[in-house]
Amino acid sequence: MTATGQAGSTLTSLDALREKARILRIHSLRMTTAAGSGHPTSCLSAAELMAATFFHAMQFDPANPNAISGDRFVLSKGHAAPILYAALAEAGVFPVSRLMTLRQFSSELEGHPTPRIPGVDAATGSLGQGLSVGAGLALGARIEKSPARVFVLMGDGEMAEGQVWEAAAFAGHYALDNLIALCDVNALGQSERTMYRHDTGVYQRKFESEGWSALVVDGHDIAAVTAALDQARSTRSRPTAVIARTEKGHGISFLADKDGWHGKALSPEQLEKALAELGTIPPIVKDDGRSYARKSLPVPPDFPAPPPPNYALGQMAASREAYGTGLRNLAAVNPKVYSVDGDVKNSAFSETLQKAYPDRLIQGYIAEQNLVSVAVGMAAQGLVPFVDTFACFLSRGYDQVRMAAISRSNINLCGSHCGVSIGEDGPSQMALEDLASFRAIPGAAVFYPSDAVCAERLTEEAARRGGICYIRTSRPKTPVLYTAEEKFPVPGLKVLRKSANDSVTVIGAGVTLYEALKAYDLLAARKIAIRVIDLYCIKPVDAAALAENVRATGGRVVTVEDHYYEGGLGETVLTALVEAGVALSEPKRLAVDRVPHSGKPEELVDIFGISARHIVAAVDDILRAK
Amino acid sequence: MTATGQAGSTLTSLDALREKARILRIHSLRMTTAAGSGHPTSCLSAAELMAATFFHAMQFDPANPNAISGDRFVLSKGHAAPILYAALAEAGVFPVSRLMTLRQFSSELEGHPTPRIPGVDAATGSLGQGLSVGAGLALGARIEKSPARVFVLMGDGEMAEGQVWEAAAFAGHYALDNLIALCDVNALGQSERTMYRHDTGVYQRKFESEGWSALVVDGHDIAAVTAALDQARSTRSRPTAVIARTEKGHGISFLADKDGWHGKALSPEQLEKALAELGTIPPIVKDDGRSYARKSLPVPPDFPAPPPPNYALGQMAASREAYGTGLRNLAAVNPKVYSVDGDVKNSAFSETLQKAYPDRLIQGYIAEQNLVSVAVGMAAQGLVPFVDTFACFLSRGYDQVRMAAISRSNINLCGSHCGVSIGEDGPSQMALEDLASFRAIPGAAVFYPSDAVCAERLTEEAARRGGICYIRTSRPKTPVLYTAEEKFPVPGLKVLRKSANDSVTVIGAGVTLYEALKAYDLLAARKIAIRVIDLYCIKPVDAAALAENVRATGGRVVTVEDHYYEGGLGETVLTALVEAGVALSEPKRLAVDRVPHSGKPEELVDIFGISARHIVAAVDDILRAK
Repeated sequence: MTATGQAGSTLTSLDALREKARILRIHSLRMTTAAGSGHPTSCLSAAELMAATFFHAMQFDPANPNAISGDRFVLSKGHAAPILYAALAEAGVFPVSRLMTLRQFSSELEGHPTPRIPGVDAATGSLGQGLSVGAGLALGARIEKSPARVFVLMGDGEMAEGQVWEAAAFAGHYALDNLIALCDVNALGQSERTMYRHDTGVYQRKFESEGWSALVVDGHDIAAVTAALDQARSTRSRPTAVIARTEKGHGISFLADKDGWHGKALSPEQLEKALAELGTIPPIVKDDGRSYARKSLPVPPDFPAPPPPNYALGQMAASREAYGTGLRNLAAVNPKVYSVDGDVKNSAFSETLQKAYPDRLIQGYIAEQNLVSVAVGMAAQGLVPFVDTFACFLSRGYDQVRMAAISRSNINLCGSHCGVSIGEDGPSQMALEDLASFRAIPGAAVFYPSDAVCAERLTEEAARRGGICYIRTSRPKTPVLYTAEEKFPVPGLKVLRKSANDSVTVIGAGVTLYEALKAYDLLAARKIAIRVIDLYCIKPVDAAALAENVRATGGRVVTVEDHYYEGGLGETVLTALVEAGVALSEPKRLAVDRVPHSGKPEELVDIFGISARHIVAAVDDILRAK
Repeated sequence: MTATGQAGSTLTSLDALREKARILRIHSLRMTTAAGSGHPTSCLSAAELMAATFFHAMQFDPANPNAISGDRFVLSKGHAAPILYAALAEAGVFPVSRLMTLRQFSSELEGHPTPRIPGVDAATGSLGQGLSVGAGLALGARIEKSPARVFVLMGDGEMAEGQVWEAAAFAGHYALDNLIALCDVNALGQSERTMYRHDTGVYQRKFESEGWSALVVDGHDIAAVTAALDQARSTRSRPTAVIARTEKGHGISFLADKDGWHGKALSPEQLEKALAELGTIPPIVKDDGRSYARKSLPVPPDFPAPPPPNYALGQMAASREAYGTGLRNLAAVNPKVYSVDGDVKNSAFSETLQKAYPDRLIQGYIAEQNLVSVAVGMAAQGLVPFVDTFACFLSRGYDQVRMAAISRSNINLCGSHCGVSIGEDGPSQMALEDLASFRAIPGAAVFYPSDAVCAERLTEEAARRGGICYIRTSRPKTPVLYTAEEKFPVPGLKVLRKSANDSVTVIGAGVTLYEALKAYDLLAARKIAIRVIDLYCIKPVDAAALAENVRATGGRVVTVEDHYYEGGLGETVLTALVEAGVALSEPKRLAVDRVPHSGKPEELVDIFGISARHIVAAVDDILRAK
């Protein structure tokens, strides 16, 4: 790292940088052989790129390598983790001795990088996500008025991922001149040659078509690499791509540009042979077993209470609209709140935020993968991003959400237009699998507000809460159920209808909650009392409260959801109940059992079996069996 | 359509094509006003493109518009469905009278296209997938030696999706000169101007960088559009992109290039005003209510029995390897079987197929979204594609799988390297949410073979079966459990350990099945008998057999899975059991409860709570509570 009042000092001599590259190679080979697995050849192609970036271009404090004031590095080709760890160690972030613990359960130096490692901001290893994360970091730095820059190292194999080009377009559009992409074009993928092999001109044209400065260099010529990095520093209003022609396994005669070596550690004998080619070899320093895992990861900033929801009971309002209002109210008290929108702000209602605070909405266009990973980068700069699009289109970013969880990132996702109740647009626009997919994200909270007050309050909760929060909103306008004073704890549920002689508990959320309330009225007219529960928090689920209520109705329960049968509200509830030891009596789940069709919302809710009529029939069935 | 011994006749006169464009505009406006919703302005920008494509360039039989011998059309910008339906009707695929049923529940003409409509091969409406589907159709045509061509209409908004550029790279790499992309650059997205507005040069450079011929035209100049289509016809070894500068709402003064009209049908008064600008208006023909939905959708071809699995009982083999062997054996008897690989053929083992049949593996590189949608296109040409990559990376194509289900497509997906049992590579490479996400795909089968014989047999089953099949394979080698004669019905399960005095049923699959067998031995030494079930078919699940076995052990059950707790094997089993009326006694689920870590496979299986030791403890807990 170069000195700017921070730690470290520039290695001005090219020879010194060459020596660093040599040392990084030695570490990478040794670490992977010690671990017995890993990707040494993918490290060797990047040695000069890493040496020049870490020891010539970057400026950061090794004692605080994730600070917003310092330059940041994202290893998009996460399988080259050993050389990243080697560079961090050589930069003084943690001791060199730590390197030999690679891939051990007791070590923070995992097979692919995670933010438990100081200097890492996002987990990588699912390829093609790093440039988006880098764009989010760069945008975050700009928002926070940090002069720091962001470097992203990509492999050419991963540049087949469309997300790379979503990120390139995004960075070009927003003229992120604090973003530098390093492309390690070693021409070998995992299983064969890459699509473009060593045709660096293709990558250059692709980046240039996105408005980037794109420089082609010999990636093993340290002078050329440093010159390109210097040119990137002085390039204004455009991001820079340094497209480096490299060799996988470079520096070792029997590995260089050889197929069949991907993801293979050298045997001790092969290592010895390889090291013999690398000159003087430093001794291995014994590690003392002390962990250098980051003590704390970013948490969302605290903020004062936002303006309360402002609705009259019974007023018609869609939860998707309330999300937008909630965002705007949050923004009034939390300067870190941003929307990252997928060109649906007039449907998901983040335009309500934008109208009040034009700078607080980042238009990400129709590129959901990039939206999610940009949000991860922004969150790593201390911002509180809310990604919004139709709930079904968040499935486009599912791998990115998965990786965000491994990143322990604090991002919020709002999916509007869930379920068949969107109506005429048809199944391609209906999210019917989102509860299942988001529930399976570790640590994620899954919120499903039914009314506008709840939607605003859960939007606030999402901003306060660490980890990933998913908010599922609905298209139809429905009556407001709660006053502004109502609290929505997590986990939690609301019992909306209750009496001493309830015969069945009916549990819904969103449009199905209103169907349950209609069913309540229909059954009440026949002197049958049911308990009606608003399960606004699907995960974590309040198993104790569910058990208490369903026990009170003799183990008789109906769940009803605008979602497919698998993995949604119904399975959540039934599993929680049986694990709580509730003896269930003829439990019924109502859900969508096949690909739906265009039609009127009310018509579809009925045809696909989740309307009041079906709830009444399910209750009748249960009571007949009683 | 032009005549080549097929139905229809070329409209050689440009005036006649202009008249078709005018009629398509009239239909689109009327249909959406009648439906009360839809995207008329997105249709109007494409009227000349559609007229020239359908009535000048395309050759197909209106009575059989999905035939492999005929040209195909994919409306990637699916929200412009009305103009596609209008073109199909004007081409004689179904009566014009049908158009006014748009978006009604009783009509096959849904809000966005689905293959229930003749002439449609894949559902669209999730943007940016059509070019991949088109590439799959074009590749399928080439494989089947059809001279037919494939036309894909995209909007500029959706060209922000990275998948478009994955598809463009794929089509360029494979020199698919039978593929023509029509880009309707109307410069207006849903909520604001598109990223590049009317800068058609950016799109041209992007396509050219992928090796395409890219022609920029005035999209409302029918002579220019037809000339470009003619040029595409004579272009060899490269796909062609016709990049058309258009206006959203073109042709109607108060709609043309106006923001705020996306997805809005005209009121009857606005419609009258609009039609007045379009000249002579044909009368509306009353529809007789007869459905023109396709009578049948493609089914996988039948084929003779492949060579049987060839393993000795107890032999060590990984299910991922057996998948590759199974593919090779299938290919010997089924000429339609293809692998579409994401540069992991040496890990997921589709290289076994490729080594025997080099042409039967399509290298899709690291671009999972494109892999899935290409497979949808190939399946629509009657091929039987198997997409393979690491199971966790199939999450990258989740939206594409969702759309494949809406397409009623017959595609197979094999995800290797599931769960923590992959070991040192760490959480980014571990699929722990895939059972949840694939179960929530309507109609999908979810297979989880534990041994090599079962893996081969379920690969065969996938090739025979319609719809989406997901096969989850494991990295570690495990002993072969079954002989070649064993049958694996769907749904179904195998009872591997059974006695008259079993006290608890333990259900696993993959590595956890072997842990259950170890637990059996440990408990047997203590005179505790357990029943052990291999649940190789997670969906559809054999609820009756589960119920019978768990009833036989007094409702005492332990599930154990190398997956997160949500939506996987455990929830499937518990929900099936309670819905089958089995009274459960202290059911226990063992699963992974947090983001895992790098480590040795056996170490991780134990640390994350799914090893034999934990199964024994769970059984002991249940029996203590007995």
